[in-house]
Amino acid sequence: VRTGVPEIIYCAGKTQEQICGIVKNMLEHGAEHIFGTRCSREKYEAVRKICPDMEYDELARIISRGKPAQPFNNGMILVACAGTSDLPVAREAALTARFLGNEVEEIYDVGVAGIHRLLAKMDVLTRANVVIAVAGMEGALASVIGGLTDKPVIAVPTSVGYGASFNGLAALLAMLNSCASGTSVVNIDNGFGAGYMAHSINCLAGKRSR
Amino acid sequence: VRTGVPEIIYCAGKTQEQICGIVKNMLEHGAEHIFGTRCSREKYEAVRKICPDMEYDELARIISRGKPAQPFNNGMILVACAGTSDLPVAREAALTARFLGNEVEEIYDVGVAGIHRLLAKMDVLTRANVVIAVAGMEGALASVIGGLTDKPVIAVPTSVGYGASFNGLAALLAMLNSCASGTSVVNIDNGFGAGYMAHSINCLAGKRSR
Amino acid sequence: VRTGVPEIIYCAGKTQEQICGIVKNMLEHGAEHIFGTRCSREKYEAVRKICPDMEYDELARIISRGKPAQPFNNGMILVACAGTSDLPVAREAALTARFLGNEVEEIYDVGVAGIHRLLAKMDVLTRANVVIAVAGMEGALASVIGGLTDKPVIAVPTSVGYGASFNGLAALLAMLNSCASGTSVVNIDNGFGAGYMAHSINCLAGKRSR
Amino acid sequence: VRTGVPEIIYCAGKTQEQICGIVKNMLEHGAEHIFGTRCSREKYEAVRKICPDMEYDELARIISRGKPAQPFNNGMILVACAGTSDLPVAREAALTARFLGNEVEEIYDVGVAGIHRLLAKMDVLTRANVVIAVAGMEGALASVIGGLTDKPVIAVPTSVGYGASFNGLAALLAMLNSCASGTSVVNIDNGFGAGYMAHSINCLAGKRSR
Amino acid sequence: VRTGVPEIIYCAGKTQEQICGIVKNMLEHGAEHIFGTRCSREKYEAVRKICPDMEYDELARIISRGKPAQPFNNGMILVACAGTSDLPVAREAALTARFLGNEVEEIYDVGVAGIHRLLAKMDVLTRANVVIAVAGMEGALASVIGGLTDKPVIAVPTSVGYGASFNGLAALLAMLNSCASGTSVVNIDNGFGAGYMAHSINCLAGKRSR
Amino acid sequence: VRTGVPEIIYCAGKTQEQICGIVKNMLEHGAEHIFGTRCSREKYEAVRKICPDMEYDELARIISRGKPAQPFNNGMILVACAGTSDLPVAREAALTARFLGNEVEEIYDVGVAGIHRLLAKMDVLTRANVVIAVAGMEGALASVIGGLTDKPVIAVPTSVGYGASFNGLAALLAMLNSCASGTSVVNIDNGFGAGYMAHSINCLAGKRSR
Amino acid sequence: VRTGVPEIIYCAGKTQEQICGIVKNMLEHGAEHIFGTRCSREKYEAVRKICPDMEYDELARIISRGKPAQPFNNGMILVACAGTSDLPVAREAALTARFLGNEVEEIYDVGVAGIHRLLAKMDVLTRANVVIAVAGMEGALASVIGGLTDKPVIAVPTSVGYGASFNGLAALLAMLNSCASGTSVVNIDNGFGAGYMAHSINCLAGKRSR
Amino acid sequence: VRTGVPEIIYCAGKTQEQICGIVKNMLEHGAEHIFGTRCSREKYEAVRKICPDMEYDELARIISRGKPAQPFNNGMILVACAGTSDLPVAREAALTARFLGNEVEEIYDVGVAGIHRLLAKMDVLTRANVVIAVAGMEGALASVIGGLTDKPVIAVPTSVGYGASFNGLAALLAMLNSCASGTSVVNIDNGFGAGYMAHSINCLAGKRSR
Ligand SMILES: Nc1ncnc2c1ncn2[C@@H]1O[C@H](COP(=O)(O)O)[C@@H](O)[C@H]1O
Ligand SMILES: Nc1ncnc2c1ncn2[C@@H]1O[C@H](COP(=O)(O)O)[C@@H](O)[C@H]1O
Ligand SMILES: Nc1ncnc2c1ncn2[C@@H]1O[C@H](COP(=O)(O)O)[C@@H](O)[C@H]1O
Ligand SMILES: Nc1ncnc2c1ncn2[C@@H]1O[C@H](COP(=O)(O)O)[C@@H](O)[C@H]1O
Ligand SMILES: [Mg+2]
Ligand SMILES: [Mg+2]
Ligand SMILES: [Mg+2]
Ligand SMILES: [Mg+2]
Ligand SMILES: [Mg+2]
Ligand SMILES: [Mg+2]
Ligand SMILES: [Mg+2]
Ligand SMILES: [Mg+2]
Repeated sequence: VRTGVPEIIYCAGKTQEQICGIVKNMLEHGAEHIFGTRCSREKYEAVRKICPDMEYDELARIISRGKPAQPFNNGMILVACAGTSDLPVAREAALTARFLGNEVEEIYDVGVAGIHRLLAKMDVLTRANVVIAVAGMEGALASVIGGLTDKPVIAVPTSVGYGASFNGLAALLAMLNSCASGTSVVNIDNGFGAGYMAHSINCLAGKRSR
Repeated sequence: VRTGVPEIIYCAGKTQEQICGIVKNMLEHGAEHIFGTRCSREKYEAVRKICPDMEYDELARIISRGKPAQPFNNGMILVACAGTSDLPVAREAALTARFLGNEVEEIYDVGVAGIHRLLAKMDVLTRANVVIAVAGMEGALASVIGGLTDKPVIAVPTSVGYGASFNGLAALLAMLNSCASGTSVVNIDNGFGAGYMAHSINCLAGKRSR
Repeated sequence: VRTGVPEIIYCAGKTQEQICGIVKNMLEHGAEHIFGTRCSREKYEAVRKICPDMEYDELARIISRGKPAQPFNNGMILVACAGTSDLPVAREAALTARFLGNEVEEIYDVGVAGIHRLLAKMDVLTRANVVIAVAGMEGALASVIGGLTDKPVIAVPTSVGYGASFNGLAALLAMLNSCASGTSVVNIDNGFGAGYMAHSINCLAGKRSR
Repeated sequence: VRTGVPEIIYCAGKTQEQICGIVKNMLEHGAEHIFGTRCSREKYEAVRKICPDMEYDELARIISRGKPAQPFNNGMILVACAGTSDLPVAREAALTARFLGNEVEEIYDVGVAGIHRLLAKMDVLTRANVVIAVAGMEGALASVIGGLTDKPVIAVPTSVGYGASFNGLAALLAMLNSCASGTSVVNIDNGFGAGYMAHSINCLAGKRSR
Repeated sequence: VRTGVPEIIYCAGKTQEQICGIVKNMLEHGAEHIFGTRCSREKYEAVRKICPDMEYDELARIISRGKPAQPFNNGMILVACAGTSDLPVAREAALTARFLGNEVEEIYDVGVAGIHRLLAKMDVLTRANVVIAVAGMEGALASVIGGLTDKPVIAVPTSVGYGASFNGLAALLAMLNSCASGTSVVNIDNGFGAGYMAHSINCLAGKRSR
Repeated sequence: VRTGVPEIIYCAGKTQEQICGIVKNMLEHGAEHIFGTRCSREKYEAVRKICPDMEYDELARIISRGKPAQPFNNGMILVACAGTSDLPVAREAALTARFLGNEVEEIYDVGVAGIHRLLAKMDVLTRANVVIAVAGMEGALASVIGGLTDKPVIAVPTSVGYGASFNGLAALLAMLNSCASGTSVVNIDNGFGAGYMAHSINCLAGKRSR
Repeated sequence: VRTGVPEIIYCAGKTQEQICGIVKNMLEHGAEHIFGTRCSREKYEAVRKICPDMEYDELARIISRGKPAQPFNNGMILVACAGTSDLPVAREAALTARFLGNEVEEIYDVGVAGIHRLLAKMDVLTRANVVIAVAGMEGALASVIGGLTDKPVIAVPTSVGYGASFNGLAALLAMLNSCASGTSVVNIDNGFGAGYMAHSINCLAGKRSR
Repeated sequence: VRTGVPEIIYCAGKTQEQICGIVKNMLEHGAEHIFGTRCSREKYEAVRKICPDMEYDELARIISRGKPAQPFNNGMILVACAGTSDLPVAREAALTARFLGNEVEEIYDVGVAGIHRLLAKMDVLTRANVVIAVAGMEGALASVIGGLTDKPVIAVPTSVGYGASFNGLAALLAMLNSCASGTSVVNIDNGFGAGYMAHSINCLAGKRSR
């Protein structure tokens, strides 16, 4: 693999058998690090039978084995999240970035309807190299954060909400229209993609400190 | 008219001749107050010929004649606006509410990507009875304001923007999904409707002070 | 809390454990009034174990504990509802507004295809300070009521219907395009938001009578 | 032609030359009755050169020549219209039905936000065989009329409005979701289609009186 | 009831208890004819306990009791249906029209991709007073039938299909754009509405034969 | 070029200068055959100055120079077209296929609302190797033709229509949902793409006859 | 049947009883070849009871009985597939084309984000008469393949993905906009339609080799 | 300004007078660097009167004055562009990034239907710190590039195309669904936003080289 990134398994479209097959194959090839997203507990239980030290994050629905020896980079990626229902997506982003070797901090419950909770976190915002802003419903968090930092912001709309949220469409459109410069967007609920993008950005900065 | 509200002319779908006919008819019936929205300068010039003291607001595209003797109510309606391109809609709201007898204040350039500009206006926000939040693009202003006040907030999405703003759809959906309680929404670009709604709310409060 | 409004729990995106945790925490801090929307019976049963005097409204799917000692306000909020399938949303609006201390009346089965049933209710319509109009399908109720009263009308589209109702989109669009002045709209099925908005409006009026 | 209906020219997609060619051809074949919709004044002026007794209705944008000697049918088709901007579509429906030999009555300015104006017309509603309800914006007229009559109602959404009317989509969806039985819908702005459908219905009734 | 049409129960949004309550109430008021649409077998079984002579049509999901003594009208309503998956909607239309006192004929499997099967039915098409054309997928049946008859055609799009059928949207749009005159459209899957509309049209013709 | 297909210029997104530059360059490289789509008359006039034997098809808006010496293939491509407003797209398809060396026949005015006009053309349909079905509005032509032939059918939706045609979306969806096997679809108004696809299919057959 | 193609059963909209009825009927009429798509294992088990040599492909969800004695045609149809989740649709296409008598080859895991995997298959691409490109998510495979071959390409969007894939809409639109000439598109997930279209194209070529 | 980025003028929603006012004000405050996007030639001509050394890029529609003394950063931003109609957006991105002090390279005409043209540019792709991929129609470029590099890729959909491109929606959705990791998306036609995002990423890397 060109990038040195360990293979990542997207479990959503795969059967238990297919996932076990992939994991077995990776183990046979001596893979130390294994990471899989969108994995149900059932599938995890099956995988654990053939790979006992596989761990499971219930919230993020992520299976993983092995951690990078040490973060390759001093720069920090911040994951900021509006509401508690957005947590699974935020955790998917955080775990992905951490697995790829980044230092990650997380701030939760900083939705824009309570702006002072976000402003109280200016210090951690200032320390971050990259910010991942996760929000459903009106998706305004990305714009507000974008206005508070000059670092790149990756916006993740979530499918949280009902009615005119249209499964995340409202947040997606809002984020694409963000009036804050230095913001870009990934697919609805794509915590993995945001974590990966943040990592590929942080890699540029990372080279610095070595 | 039940509410004592003077008749209001929606000029967009009417020819010059039709508008002049309505105005002439109103004048003949002794109308002192005349008010028309979505009026082009051309139509205004035609109307002025038969009603010389008709005035014109270029930005809001409103024709009006006569002002209420004095605001009927001590309560204030605040119109807050994100960007300069949203100004015509914001002004339509402000002029409508003022014409209907309300005291109106306006704050502009308080988009959420520069949150401190909005926070610097907490005093006027606190004094308002009702707030009209006008914003295009990601439409986040309504949520942030809704979180800063416990007064009713009327959100007006505007068609400002391009691409995935889809002529105001992005802002409309964002506002409908606002996570701040005490917020409701009118049609895209409907400054008139917001001004009128704010007035009908302020009327309730207004009765108090008499 | 700035507004004196008790904390309200949105149960839809939370697990049984999370809701019980919140309720326990509120009780420990001496909360008398607890209110939660979108709560399944299962979740309610779990909550009742740690809070035996919690009550449940099956239709509105609301848990609540404690009532305001007496309505703070003489003004009345009217909830009008088109069809029987719209009832859960209408009840959510009514219970929310009542919990927040408002006097609430309810009229049901006043869909526009039977206009005389609505006209027969002119007296209660006239007595209301604010009207909440709940309707799915073609959502015409808001416009008709808006034309019959000069009080603020809050329109709530519901996801009732099938086919080209597109889960409430038809009613939402109709309500946003209402030709009656003095009307604004909340999200599809958002009875809570309508009740809260009506409350924030009624508060303005409420100050009057003290 | 099976139905005895004279050929009708849809001028919108045709050049001046094409329309003149069709008219000339009809005249040469001895056609007494000629009827064309969506015709601009320019095109009409060109046609009049080769067919001097062709008439033009500016509002409906219809060219026509010759009238049926006498209405073939005692039954009446009623065209009801919500706002003044809907007039062109309503007129297209009325002129089409009249040209096809029907007695047509028209009532205008009966939008649902002023329900009493419609109720004042119950007599003519009761006399009609078929009702065509023309409305843009929230399109609620069809449901209200459908509830007031047991005759078939043909709903015509118009593209009048702005913002979330989405060029007639809001009215179209509302009409398709009408909660009044005995209602069906034609395409946005399709006055012609409504007039024709009403005619084909009235033909059934028409046979009665002979 | 103004129209002499017996009350019809829309069971989809009602609980077993609610439906039984309505039926019991109707029986107590001496109703001979009872008719309900969108009724599951479970609900039917419950109803039958309190109304043993209630019948059930599995395909159309209709409960009914009592038949009109004799068709009030010699005119015939034809229900034509493209595919076997459209049958439930077609049957809902047919049973509704029949229950309302009309003579109804049905032709099935006449989709446009096998045009000769439809052409082979010209005789029954010619005998009909009104035609109901039921089709999902590309919804072309209405246009073809509309071209073959000069009687009013009511088009019913169905939600049959997958992918770009978007739950009936494709068929709905196609039918609204039908190039055949004398066609109008009801909501997706609304067999009931089509049957009722056909009845209200046939009533006009019906008066003739008395 | 791998396929021996001469370079084709898509003029829509290019300035007069850019097109002239490309043509000049082709001439300098000895190109005999030049072909450009979506070309306005203005652009053509400019091109003719530097390439006097360039020809222009007003309807199809195509510039071309040189014809293949003789059709490379005995198989015939049939272009069938529903209405006169679809003609430009049909012609773009026909000219493209002909320019690429195919024998092309064209039948027009065979919309499905007059099915007998299409059935009268069974002979030419039977002789075709490939059929291109061009239709706007309800787009039903492709399905009917697909049912009448076992040859591949390429469906081209056009943006002809108004209201719920949504600029060709209705026809596009209808064609994608065609219930006739052996049909595939190109972009709205993409006569060029259909002509090219038909050519690439006919090439397979073409090799046969040599 | 004109084309000599055996009758094919679309099982999705049919009950177990209906499918068994059809199969029994085919067997009684001496059918050797039976083929059914979108068939669940449950339905298959039922069918097998009356037709013991019916086979089942779990992935493609296809039942089939009997194979063509030998491929009628030397030309080859290539099915190329982007991701493992697209496999069921790709297999439906492959099995359909093979059942109709074509030689079919399949290449999988050639998504555009790993372009070299596709380029490594140029030989098989070059040998194909027709290519079926199956892809969900961004659907780019069709354009890349279309650029690599001059044979007709049939693009099949799949509903694989989440969020802004909108159940295959993203892939569908991308494929309709393909910038590669010689490409056309079938409905989302319509592997059957693609296989059939490829067959009807290959038939033209097939005649060649006899 | 926090980030040291000079103020940038978005000219699209501003009048000539407003833009001149802003420029004059900047000059009076000693601004050396002025940069404005979406500026028509007319507006530029007006600005040049008060700021004679303002320059204009016709293609990108950008006004600018002054260049950064030297790129602050050795890292390079690559702008890759699919078709000639995408050029204005690509140039907007390139000029923005360059104005902000970055070294920028540009490669054009590398659409995915001619994949070898892109592969021939692997060297420049490998040298880039960040890649901006600009594409309309099917928007596949971002995925292919994302698969060829491990650097962050910013995808810009353009509104180029017709029919089912729906003004850039097709490209936008495709890019959001990109199967290549390390990709994020900005609004349709938002070359400025992509250039700015690339800059904010490159800033992280840039610090390295000092
Ligand atoms: N949650 C996710 N959302 C989107 N893409 C993912 C996700 N998790 C993994 N992926 C991508 O899927 C690829 C693996 O796909 P597959 O080969 O089908 O398992 C990984 O390399 C990632 O690029
Ligand atoms: N800008 C506006 N947007 C929406 N509705 C408006 C606007 N201006 C006026 N109206 C409404 O249009 C009514 C007048 O409509 P009309 O009778 O057509 O002139 C007024 O009473 C208002 O309710
Ligand atoms: N299948 C159906 N689809 C739409 N409307 C229906 C249907 N069946 C009955 N209705 C309507 O629903 C009304 C009864 O509604 P309800 O009072 O809620 O039972 C009837 O009078 C009909 O107008
Ligand atoms: N009318 C059309 N619609 C879509 N694509 C076209 C059309 N005409 C030409 N093309 C394609 O555009 C390519 C040329 O594009 P360009 O290099 O921008 O001139 C041709 O090779 C065709 O593939
Ligand atoms: Mg920023
Ligand atoms: Mg608030
Ligand atoms: Mg009112
Ligand atoms: Mg009725
Ligand atoms: Mg007809
Ligand atoms: Mg066929
Ligand atoms: Mg090709
Ligand atoms: Mg990459």
